Amino acid sequence: MVESKNIVWSQSNISPEKRENLLGNKGAVVWLTGLSGSGKSTIAKALEEQVFKIGCNAYILDGDNVRHSLNADLGFSDEDREENIRRVGAVAALFADAGIITIVSFISPFEIGRQRARQLVGQDRFFEVFLDVPLKVCEKRDPKGLYRKARDGQIAKFTGIDSPYEQPSNPELIINTAENNVDYAVAEIINMLKNAEIIKE
Amino acid sequence: MVESKNIVWSQSNISPEKRENLLGNKGAVVWLTGLSGSGKSTIAKALEEQVFKIGCNAYILDGDNVRHSLNADLGFSDEDREENIRRVGAVAALFADAGIITIVSFISPFEIGRQRARQLVGQDRFFEVFLDVPLKVCEKRDPKGLYRKARDGQIAKFTGIDSPYEQPSNPELIINTAENNVDYAVAEIINMLKNAEIIKE
Repeated sequence: MVESKNIVWSQSNISPEKRENLLGNKGAVVWLTGLSGSGKSTIAKALEEQVFKIGCNAYILDGDNVRHSLNADLGFSDEDREENIRRVGAVAALFADAGIITIVSFISPFEIGRQRARQLVGQDRFFEVFLDVPLKVCEKRDPKGLYRKARDGQIAKFTGIDSPYEQPSNPELIINTAENNVDYAVAEIINMLKNAEIIKE
Repeated sequence: MVESKNIVWSQSNISPEKRENLLGNKGAVVWLTGLSGSGKSTIAKALEEQVFKIGCNAYILDGDNVRHSLNADLGFSDEDREENIRRVGAVAALFADAGIITIVSFISPFEIGRQRARQLVGQDRFFEVFLDVPLKVCEKRDPKGLYRKARDGQIAKFTGIDSPYEQPSNPELIINTAENNVDYAVAEIINMLKNAEIIKE
């Protein structure tokens, strides 16, 4: 943390209540975490569409897309992965503050990184959704062909193969996408957001 | 730039047109640049309120606020200032993509940084607004007492004192806030956004 005594917080004139009145929903972060191939991108896209159908603005922060722009300077060392998640947590907090239903689709393998994101965003609007699928199922799906490359030694430190995935200790929702389809997953998440009064009934 | 051949772009199912139909406006970035004390924060807040009154979602990315979170790891060296602006440009592009009228309020003293932001966001939705005020006026206003500290040697590399401010070479709008009030500035910016069909008449 850099010394910042000459930096003061600039307060918007638009209160969260005013924003909610205009938009019809509260800002929130739906943080999808799970192995590559667990269904994050698929569920994120379907969820975004469903939130739009309800008439609210949603936006996906996707691990791959963010690595093309904001985090294009980062690699895959443990340090860079941590910084990758730190920045995404900070950006997700800004999006939630703007009243967006923010869908984060990142492997985000480490508990500490997800916990920091939760703190930045705020407990009352952070929803950690763990896509709980056995590695063997993800590896069989292998939608991007990455597991094959990792097993062949073409990718190092691949989560689930030679880099750990730490399961969430207390997520808001667990969905087994080996046994449930996309519609089920989206319905579960929408239901959770309604119960938390992020989206109105 | 890190090698990223294993990262593929994930395309949202919500097209920009679908998003515009829901929100009633296009996403855009209004990039306010100018010396400390030139009126960026004041105009940003008043503009945000006015966009809300029209019924569109606006959000301010403020230099000081972003340095508290996303860019808390950065200092004030030339390199860190460049990275500060690079990241804000990338985040502003994401916000514009989400359909938000994104108001960036950063001194952003270097032409190269603002040009890179323009490229990231896209020419058709990037609006550079130069708050053109003589240094002596800003220094007299000194709303945060920073010029006094800079003159006293308590702050090094302060823009306008011992660090340069490069005037925009081709901004979409120039506003002299020494001779015009906040309402005038906001009206000029709203008018520009309507002419560009970002906001509907």
